[in-house]
Amino acid sequence: MNPVTMQLVADKYIRIALEEDIHNEDVSTNAVMPFYQKGTVQLICKEDGIIAGLAVFERVFTMLDPATVVECTARDGDAVKKGEVLGTVTGDVRVLLSGERTALNYLQRMSGIATYTHRVVALLEGTSTKLLDTRKTTPGMRIFEKYAVRVGGGSNHRYNLSDGVLLKDNHIDAAGGVKKAVEAARAYAPFVRKIEVETENLDMVREAVEAGADIIMLDNMTPEEMAEAVRIIDGRAMTECSGNITRENIQTIAGLGVDYVSSGALTHSAPILDISLKHLTVIRED
Amino acid sequence: MNPVTMQLVADKYIRIALEEDIHNEDVSTNAVMPFYQKGTVQLICKEDGIIAGLAVFERVFTMLDPATVVECTARDGDAVKKGEVLGTVTGDVRVLLSGERTALNYLQRMSGIATYTHRVVALLEGTSTKLLDTRKTTPGMRIFEKYAVRVGGGSNHRYNLSDGVLLKDNHIDAAGGVKKAVEAARAYAPFVRKIEVETENLDMVREAVEAGADIIMLDNMTPEEMAEAVRIIDGRAMTECSGNITRENIQTIAGLGVDYVSSGALTHSAPILDISLKHLTVIRED
Amino acid sequence: MNPVTMQLVADKYIRIALEEDIHNEDVSTNAVMPFYQKGTVQLICKEDGIIAGLAVFERVFTMLDPATVVECTARDGDAVKKGEVLGTVTGDVRVLLSGERTALNYLQRMSGIATYTHRVVALLEGTSTKLLDTRKTTPGMRIFEKYAVRVGGGSNHRYNLSDGVLLKDNHIDAAGGVKKAVEAARAYAPFVRKIEVETENLDMVREAVEAGADIIMLDNMTPEEMAEAVRIIDGRAMTECSGNITRENIQTIAGLGVDYVSSGALTHSAPILDISLKHLTVIRED
Amino acid sequence: MNPVTMQLVADKYIRIALEEDIHNEDVSTNAVMPFYQKGTVQLICKEDGIIAGLAVFERVFTMLDPATVVECTARDGDAVKKGEVLGTVTGDVRVLLSGERTALNYLQRMSGIATYTHRVVALLEGTSTKLLDTRKTTPGMRIFEKYAVRVGGGSNHRYNLSDGVLLKDNHIDAAGGVKKAVEAARAYAPFVRKIEVETENLDMVREAVEAGADIIMLDNMTPEEMAEAVRIIDGRAMTECSGNITRENIQTIAGLGVDYVSSGALTHSAPILDISLKHLTVIRED
Amino acid sequence: MNPVTMQLVADKYIRIALEEDIHNEDVSTNAVMPFYQKGTVQLICKEDGIIAGLAVFERVFTMLDPATVVECTARDGDAVKKGEVLGTVTGDVRVLLSGERTALNYLQRMSGIATYTHRVVALLEGTSTKLLDTRKTTPGMRIFEKYAVRVGGGSNHRYNLSDGVLLKDNHIDAAGGVKKAVEAARAYAPFVRKIEVETENLDMVREAVEAGADIIMLDNMTPEEMAEAVRIIDGRAMTECSGNITRENIQTIAGLGVDYVSSGALTHSAPILDISLKHLTVIRED
Amino acid sequence: MNPVTMQLVADKYIRIALEEDIHNEDVSTNAVMPFYQKGTVQLICKEDGIIAGLAVFERVFTMLDPATVVECTARDGDAVKKGEVLGTVTGDVRVLLSGERTALNYLQRMSGIATYTHRVVALLEGTSTKLLDTRKTTPGMRIFEKYAVRVGGGSNHRYNLSDGVLLKDNHIDAAGGVKKAVEAARAYAPFVRKIEVETENLDMVREAVEAGADIIMLDNMTPEEMAEAVRIIDGRAMTECSGNITRENIQTIAGLGVDYVSSGALTHSAPILDISLKHLTVIRED
Repeated sequence: MNPVTMQLVADKYIRIALEEDIHNEDVSTNAVMPFYQKGTVQLICKEDGIIAGLAVFERVFTMLDPATVVECTARDGDAVKKGEVLGTVTGDVRVLLSGERTALNYLQRMSGIATYTHRVVALLEGTSTKLLDTRKTTPGMRIFEKYAVRVGGGSNHRYNLSDGVLLKDNHIDAAGGVKKAVEAARAYAPFVRKIEVETENLDMVREAVEAGADIIMLDNMTPEEMAEAVRIIDGRAMTECSGNITRENIQTIAGLGVDYVSSGALTHSAPILDISLKHLTVIRED
Repeated sequence: MNPVTMQLVADKYIRIALEEDIHNEDVSTNAVMPFYQKGTVQLICKEDGIIAGLAVFERVFTMLDPATVVECTARDGDAVKKGEVLGTVTGDVRVLLSGERTALNYLQRMSGIATYTHRVVALLEGTSTKLLDTRKTTPGMRIFEKYAVRVGGGSNHRYNLSDGVLLKDNHIDAAGGVKKAVEAARAYAPFVRKIEVETENLDMVREAVEAGADIIMLDNMTPEEMAEAVRIIDGRAMTECSGNITRENIQTIAGLGVDYVSSGALTHSAPILDISLKHLTVIRED
Repeated sequence: MNPVTMQLVADKYIRIALEEDIHNEDVSTNAVMPFYQKGTVQLICKEDGIIAGLAVFERVFTMLDPATVVECTARDGDAVKKGEVLGTVTGDVRVLLSGERTALNYLQRMSGIATYTHRVVALLEGTSTKLLDTRKTTPGMRIFEKYAVRVGGGSNHRYNLSDGVLLKDNHIDAAGGVKKAVEAARAYAPFVRKIEVETENLDMVREAVEAGADIIMLDNMTPEEMAEAVRIIDGRAMTECSGNITRENIQTIAGLGVDYVSSGALTHSAPILDISLKHLTVIRED
Repeated sequence: MNPVTMQLVADKYIRIALEEDIHNEDVSTNAVMPFYQKGTVQLICKEDGIIAGLAVFERVFTMLDPATVVECTARDGDAVKKGEVLGTVTGDVRVLLSGERTALNYLQRMSGIATYTHRVVALLEGTSTKLLDTRKTTPGMRIFEKYAVRVGGGSNHRYNLSDGVLLKDNHIDAAGGVKKAVEAARAYAPFVRKIEVETENLDMVREAVEAGADIIMLDNMTPEEMAEAVRIIDGRAMTECSGNITRENIQTIAGLGVDYVSSGALTHSAPILDISLKHLTVIRED
Repeated sequence: MNPVTMQLVADKYIRIALEEDIHNEDVSTNAVMPFYQKGTVQLICKEDGIIAGLAVFERVFTMLDPATVVECTARDGDAVKKGEVLGTVTGDVRVLLSGERTALNYLQRMSGIATYTHRVVALLEGTSTKLLDTRKTTPGMRIFEKYAVRVGGGSNHRYNLSDGVLLKDNHIDAAGGVKKAVEAARAYAPFVRKIEVETENLDMVREAVEAGADIIMLDNMTPEEMAEAVRIIDGRAMTECSGNITRENIQTIAGLGVDYVSSGALTHSAPILDISLKHLTVIRED
Repeated sequence: MNPVTMQLVADKYIRIALEEDIHNEDVSTNAVMPFYQKGTVQLICKEDGIIAGLAVFERVFTMLDPATVVECTARDGDAVKKGEVLGTVTGDVRVLLSGERTALNYLQRMSGIATYTHRVVALLEGTSTKLLDTRKTTPGMRIFEKYAVRVGGGSNHRYNLSDGVLLKDNHIDAAGGVKKAVEAARAYAPFVRKIEVETENLDMVREAVEAGADIIMLDNMTPEEMAEAVRIIDGRAMTECSGNITRENIQTIAGLGVDYVSSGALTHSAPILDISLKHLTVIRED
């Protein structure tokens, strides 16, 4: 993750996560460890998968104490194996204990998404179709989850409502038709935006092409409809297929030549990757 | 969700989620709808499950515009069916469109957790063992996820590091043994806390009982060890079983008479429940 | 300004502006007015221009006291005349006095920008060239200043570094050439972004077209170079002319057929439009 | 700017300005520069003027990355020349690119105000009259703009509504006359405040002197009225002249012996000073 | 307390206080009261004193739930008696219970300060000497504590380091003497500030008068020194006596003719006034 | 104070305290000290007592300038004597002056509480009764005040409404009796909480014991009632005595064998311990 993003954006969320877990103190740790003691602990993978979020994992500890040192042998995007030691965290034992859960909550979730994305991307291998995420992210986690999708080999759709134009049926109705909606968007939106139109049938596809849409989303269509839509569009707009996508039919869809397939499940339903901190040992300093 | 919690705690997170999705404006909506227009949209369930988070769903819209009216026929905890209309949202169409994704992101995730929890709780029916969540929650979502666990029929473990004492092996080592750790915790922690000790074998169980622990966690033990641990403890402390729990063995474990079984999966790996907003219609006001 | 933007985005800045002006209290007002008294004051224009920011002006007062009523006869975008009464503010006299300066600071600046933009747009009348703003806005004022540009008849360039791709010479060098930079941007950026490339000479223009740039910025070129660039591009990309633009040469440039002309002066050097609150009168309530 | 002010006050605004420009990432930079590369860039003046805000300029970069090094040969208050190199910024090239616009937006605006102020102050040379700013500052910019006025040779009026007493006609009416208003202010306000009264005619001037006002503002008076007011006051209070001040008449006014002349234009209508970052070069580190 | 101050300033602190007391929920209340029930509770004074802070007390409840109604028969500044009913709070019983402690913590402390101040002010009756507070306030409580001092009949010294000039020995040393320090302050500080100089002996008093100080603080002097100081100053500056003030000697000091006596104890050592909420009764709504 | 608590929790409050004292600048200091100058100042105790809060005192200065060095010879909990030098603060003289008041406001208040607590704890010597604080803390000061109680030898009751269950009469009424209230709390609250019941007479004590309360508060009972209550409870629950406790009767109460005595006065009415910064000397650096 880019250091400017970490500093300016991610920090804000990480602080909130730590405040959620530590309202006033880590009472267990403070009870038994009134003083500083140096220690080190290992980051161990407990399942095969793709690792993502190591910088976030590190930042949790350095936010609690800038003197904490996190050294990783793995890098984001690496395929990791069950039992593999991914790195170590060294510092005040109290900080290691107090930050453990929050750091792992990020790392496990981000790695879970990268792993899941990686598996879906593998199904598209050999086709020109790319896998996209959606805005179906966990509240407060978008910056981390969209990053994890990229680490897993996926591509990002728009980040949010402000930085991409997607005209749905309600927008189209309000504008009085596809053509008028596209014109209104071109007139209003910063000109650096592409205009995407969501279509539900072939008539809408035709209208969208004629209106000059840059991207046409084929929403909940059958493979047959999609094939026909691609034929109609004929390269005049990019195509995104959305809805009804399963492990079973994704290759069929890719075979139709759509440019993108988008999947909310990447971020809303990926299970975590199991990772833990183990073998904390105290370091005597003489 | 209690209204004080909504006002004082949840609002902060919901605002962050909305700011994540709307950096400066909803550019698509603003392009085509420069003026107020009243509309209504239906909240429809697309899978069977347990609904949770309706107040949060509502708050997303009223935070954008206090005049929005959310009317639900379902209540948190209800078993809902695929195709069922759960309620309506009525107000400025622009608000309905701009709030839709964030509102659903909360509702789908919370309902997913309630549904998953409900299924696990069902496996414990007929036993006296209760199902607990953990601190393995999504960063920034704990207040919502722990609530969803309760809606699904589960019980909450400690909320965070500040409000519960759980002495793990590292705490025990730092204190110089189970007995000393429990004493240190009793001396330091507010006296309203129970003291929980994590044990990994039967010797530690014995020590914990003798040290006067209020709760003993049996971590990653075999069913046989757990049975023996329950026998050793003999009602002198509450017992919590953690780790290695599967759909297959959870009933066996419950049969051993442990008081609680805790599961991180409830919050870290439950898939969402599919819910959507459909049939937006404009309301003419004359 | 869209109500969602007001609620979620503008409010944050308006609060900061009020806190800047009132650290603990309005000491003058509190000294002489210990109790509530109702009053009304007129908003009067003191120069001809285009008004912009009335909703922001209103929000300053309603943030201090939701019971304040702002009634405007003018609407954003109206051409207003010296001496014209634009509206009234009615409420607790203390609130009228305490909010006056902050409310006018916004309204005067936003109207100054709308007025200046309007004059530049007038110079482009009869051409197909559109006027763009830049990111040269006053820190903390972008949401207000870019809105004012639109009210004045201008168009918005990208909102910030996150929502538009603009590859400058340093990006191009880092990537190893225009072609590689455009490819890297397409691979990395959300696919809803257009890719803009800044060019400083005709060779770069040729490279940018061949690389498939969506928009080509002609930076600090002479009119002759620009004319040649437009000829080279030949409709294969949109064109934006930037730098060296003056009241004198803007029509010449527009005559060359560039699609957009961008100007930092719209937001960084427009003088305010003089507007004031006058004739505060107390309303007796019996 | 004092380091305590930078740390405690300015930082808050600078962070907001950066968040305004980088919602989630600098997408152009991140696309082409995935890794750290050291570079340096020159800060070059493109117009003659007075430089102000170098510490703020620096802070933008060190907030993004504390390792960035800003070395300036100029100091705030220096008269700088077109083409002059004012300093260099050295660090991660990505940070140089991501911080450039925000850093310059501050520096250009602050230097514009210092330059403009300096020119007006020059017109008062040889008189005992001092130039004051007002509260007509850009929202969110007061700490920076009032500093720039001082750098340009002007003096600051009160910072905000909390730290100075200025009784206007509405305050006077509410209190029941000048005398009562001054008494109320003395009774209520912290005794370290001077009491200033705004007067619009010579009768009010007489009343204000008799009421013991510390400062009397002569608002929108003719030079003849001001001369008479100064004669009436006769050193018993300080005098501030406000309104109707132009480049043409300011020396006449100063000649009348008023202590202060205040001007809103210093902060609300000064154009920026053109300054840019140029010649970014990569530094190879072996 | 002025409504603008409440809205813009006090709210921020009150919210922090509530978040301090309710991290995620009021667990006792939520356990037994899952649903809304209307109730009312009485605010009862348990000691004689001066009441202060009723608006803050009210705001705690309305912040938790705007529907809560607080009706007070007493007003800030009233002398209240042990056993007196000061008002009622009516609303959701859960809100009454969850807000009780925080609301009383404010009211008791503010009333304690008003009561204590009132007693010290009484000792100055018949003299022209006024009682001042200091900046020795509880962190995060200044806005409330300085208000309570005024309610108790005291006057406020400067609010903070930004809004008043007080030159202490270190400032004087740094400037190179009293005269230079006063000149530096006049040149630098907004001209609406009075300049106060802290003196420790009669030589410094003489220097301060000659330097034109507006206020001279007589710090830790004996009554004899103070008498001589007042004689030396002879009306050319206001005088403030600070340090070594006790109930026993305050009248002697006042008799010397100093204008102000300041006391840190008003805010740092006043005991609370005992006040409680009693007789909560449920209101049946049919 | 634990470093994680300092970093994550205390910092937030300390920043607010500094912002309260410095709205835009320390105008006195800035007027006479435009440039950095190194200096050192002594922390001197002016009364006998127990010192508490040295880390908070230090943090005030390092927050203003991380280069400030605070060296203390005393440690929290030490008995300090009038005239004793407790440490030194070395750094930019401007930082020493600007931070002085806020740093001392914390240290004096925290030490005042520790001193007062220590005296009450001394009265309990030789008994098994422990002294508890309450939630009657100063808003925004709980983290500091509860820490000071511990430093003074007292114990902490629950931190806030979220982390401890205390069932009062209104909770009991709402639940329909003591038994039902305890059951409801056990069913709802995280199982790591002990359940405390407030009782006002012996019947309630009996009910509470039977209901299985973990802790029974004896509220405002006579010593005779308390003795009887202890006899009834007979070790089946812990006991806390609250209300009507004075220096005179506290030993009698302790003699009755109650486990805990709680006192709000520890935090709401302890006078400060007088401590000051003296002998600031400039350090020449050649």
